[in-house]
Amino acid sequence: MPAAEIRVTYRLETAGDPEATAAKIASDQSTGTFTELPGETAAVRARCAARVVGLTPLEPLATPSIPDVGGRGPYKRADAVIAYPLEAIGTDVAALMTIAIGGVYATKGLTGIRVMDIDLPDAWRCHPGPQFGIAGSRRLTGVESGPIIASIIKPSLGLLPEETAEVVRTLCEAGVDFIKDDEKLMSPGYSPLEARVAAIMPVILDHEQKTGRKVMYAFGISSADPDLMLRNHDLVLDAGGNAAVVNINSIGHGGMTFLRRRSALCLHAHRNGWDILTRHPGLGMEFRPYQKIWRLLGIDQLQINGIRAKYWEPDESFVRSFHDCMTPIFSEADRPLPVVCSGQWGGQAVETFERTGRTLDLMYLGGGGIHGHPMGPAAGVAATRQAWDAAAAGISLEQQAQAHPELAAAIARFG
Amino acid sequence: MPAAEIRVTYRLETAGDPEATAAKIASDQSTGTFTELPGETAAVRARCAARVVGLTPLEPLATPSIPDVGGRGPYKRADAVIAYPLEAIGTDVAALMTIAIGGVYATKGLTGIRVMDIDLPDAWRCHPGPQFGIAGSRRLTGVESGPIIASIIKPSLGLLPEETAEVVRTLCEAGVDFIKDDEKLMSPGYSPLEARVAAIMPVILDHEQKTGRKVMYAFGISSADPDLMLRNHDLVLDAGGNAAVVNINSIGHGGMTFLRRRSALCLHAHRNGWDILTRHPGLGMEFRPYQKIWRLLGIDQLQINGIRAKYWEPDESFVRSFHDCMTPIFSEADRPLPVVCSGQWGGQAVETFERTGRTLDLMYLGGGGIHGHPMGPAAGVAATRQAWDAAAAGISLEQQAQAHPELAAAIARFG
Repeated sequence: MPAAEIRVTYRLETAGDPEATAAKIASDQSTGTFTELPGETAAVRARCAARVVGLTPLEPLATPSIPDVGGRGPYKRADAVIAYPLEAIGTDVAALMTIAIGGVYATKGLTGIRVMDIDLPDAWRCHPGPQFGIAGSRRLTGVESGPIIASIIKPSLGLLPEETAEVVRTLCEAGVDFIKDDEKLMSPGYSPLEARVAAIMPVILDHEQKTGRKVMYAFGISSADPDLMLRNHDLVLDAGGNAAVVNINSIGHGGMTFLRRRSALCLHAHRNGWDILTRHPGLGMEFRPYQKIWRLLGIDQLQINGIRAKYWEPDESFVRSFHDCMTPIFSEADRPLPVVCSGQWGGQAVETFERTGRTLDLMYLGGGGIHGHPMGPAAGVAATRQAWDAAAAGISLEQQAQAHPELAAAIARFG
Repeated sequence: MPAAEIRVTYRLETAGDPEATAAKIASDQSTGTFTELPGETAAVRARCAARVVGLTPLEPLATPSIPDVGGRGPYKRADAVIAYPLEAIGTDVAALMTIAIGGVYATKGLTGIRVMDIDLPDAWRCHPGPQFGIAGSRRLTGVESGPIIASIIKPSLGLLPEETAEVVRTLCEAGVDFIKDDEKLMSPGYSPLEARVAAIMPVILDHEQKTGRKVMYAFGISSADPDLMLRNHDLVLDAGGNAAVVNINSIGHGGMTFLRRRSALCLHAHRNGWDILTRHPGLGMEFRPYQKIWRLLGIDQLQINGIRAKYWEPDESFVRSFHDCMTPIFSEADRPLPVVCSGQWGGQAVETFERTGRTLDLMYLGGGGIHGHPMGPAAGVAATRQAWDAAAAGISLEQQAQAHPELAAAIARFG
């Protein structure tokens, strides 16, 4: 039986030899230096040596991913799988990032490198994973089946706390299950978190009193200072809140680990900044390995855009992301609730349902599509639910719209 | 007098209009959504609206930085300066990263985007900056003038703690001022940090007893868990250590902030992973804004490669990095000690000195060049010092080597 190891798949691109490049990475990330050294014995190598365990050649490229001034192609490509002994990396995310990812990007002679996947051994079950995830998000929102219908404060920035609370009241009355601060809203001068919590939570609790339904409100608690982020967390919790938006790349693995250990809130993750890691297909990192790390560190909900999002991401990328989120790492409990968002108004419900495995385990988040519905926000929420009912029933949007004026109006405005 | 603001310079690339793209970014990162909304009043906009305050057209590219399938050039480029109100971002690094950097990378229609610089207002003086920096590093190592001569444990990985301690003894006797764990060494199974500290610190303290000189040893304390990283910090401190290696990208802004607030160690920063942010000239981020953030968060020493490094980075990039580190953000005290490293053996001393402003305020770190010197490590250290003496005296290496056999041997082996 082989000792436990971590396997990382890299898409390598080089004017040189991909096999030699893979071997160089395996060597550099274990004992390598630029000259032979007396102490580098076989015993030393055995403790930490990484090995190339697979190499799949791909079509070469005529144009390199990174400009190769004075060089010439073809730029050969291969997917290389390198196995790192668990003994050398352990279970710390910082060690994994440093040894198997960070350092690799510096390798000389590459014109492209992309981390495609990471396979983690059972020892990595030590990480906490989501505290709430899919089941906990349903329990806290009281949405037993069907998508959790969500919205975001609009305008996204610039409202004073009391103005924000008015928007919250409108959205609660419109019938949403979840509301969030824009990810860009944390604690700016015009809307400090403490004042925002004080203005918004009474509206949430008042609505709960009247209807028996507690709308989940995710406050922007992110800070690059974990101590401050924890105080932000406590502000929300003490006021009766149950969720927070965390900008995972901005707080880093350290901030996330610190918060998760102490958190009683459902953590809604926004991945802003991820794009620069993944937008160039020859560089950076696929979403698949990226989301594994954050899931193990404990995010509960994860924004992954949607069909016809307003950003650069193509639909196929979103669909892959959805499937990645729904695939267990070690167990079903480590799956976050996928949050389908960006430019969503219900019109994408049928296509989303059909392309993501016909599941209703998701949050569907509409901003402008709810606030900007021509018949008002309640109609925006209704139209969104009608669209998802159509998807679940196998009916087309147009057919559904015939008996549902809210959906018909949404199609006329946004379709 | 204008209100305080944060100015970010982006290098934009698009098949569309760079000016319209810059305007879209300014709008998206403040109040924008995909449809007009009733609440977006002039007062709301005024609180958080970002403005394009400069646009410098650059030569267009025929080949886009990010492949543009089905599209066509020319790909127009411009450096756009966008001013964000301090009121909207505040002084939190997570807010800066989310609003002015992370979200921007997702903008539709770009084929390239690179953050060139960030200008921060006086309010950002609230960040701690380096605790030791250049002056503190000199004080702790007892090196009053000239470069701090440093080495790293080799082989970089795979040694048992007692084996590592033997290498430390050799390096102390060879006369180095500073020794570090390889950045890939944190607390693996074969060399847990606690055992390594217990094996190494007696050697350092014994050497101090005998010679009166305390060699600075930087232990790899990085962890994605800030609580664990702090325990690692305390292990080193309690054993009489005074420095640590921190893998800044792997611990994140949160981990760094948490550590700095509680740290009594000199923090030697390794930037592994940075390459993927900066290696493609049309994407990601220049070193200049990157290092500003980490300096304000409190790193004391920063590895920036060197002339003829063994990685991909060209010499000009290293030279720019050195000047960036030496340029005050708010004051000279916020400058870290630049650590010149990777493939260094003394042979690059003269060129380094001439191209980096003729300063000796640096750490010069040799691994293989010291361990692999044909006359032994003490000769490796001597050769390195001889090379720097030559640089400071305006003598060529070859001239200096005539009277210095250690340098002559290094040139014969590595030159």
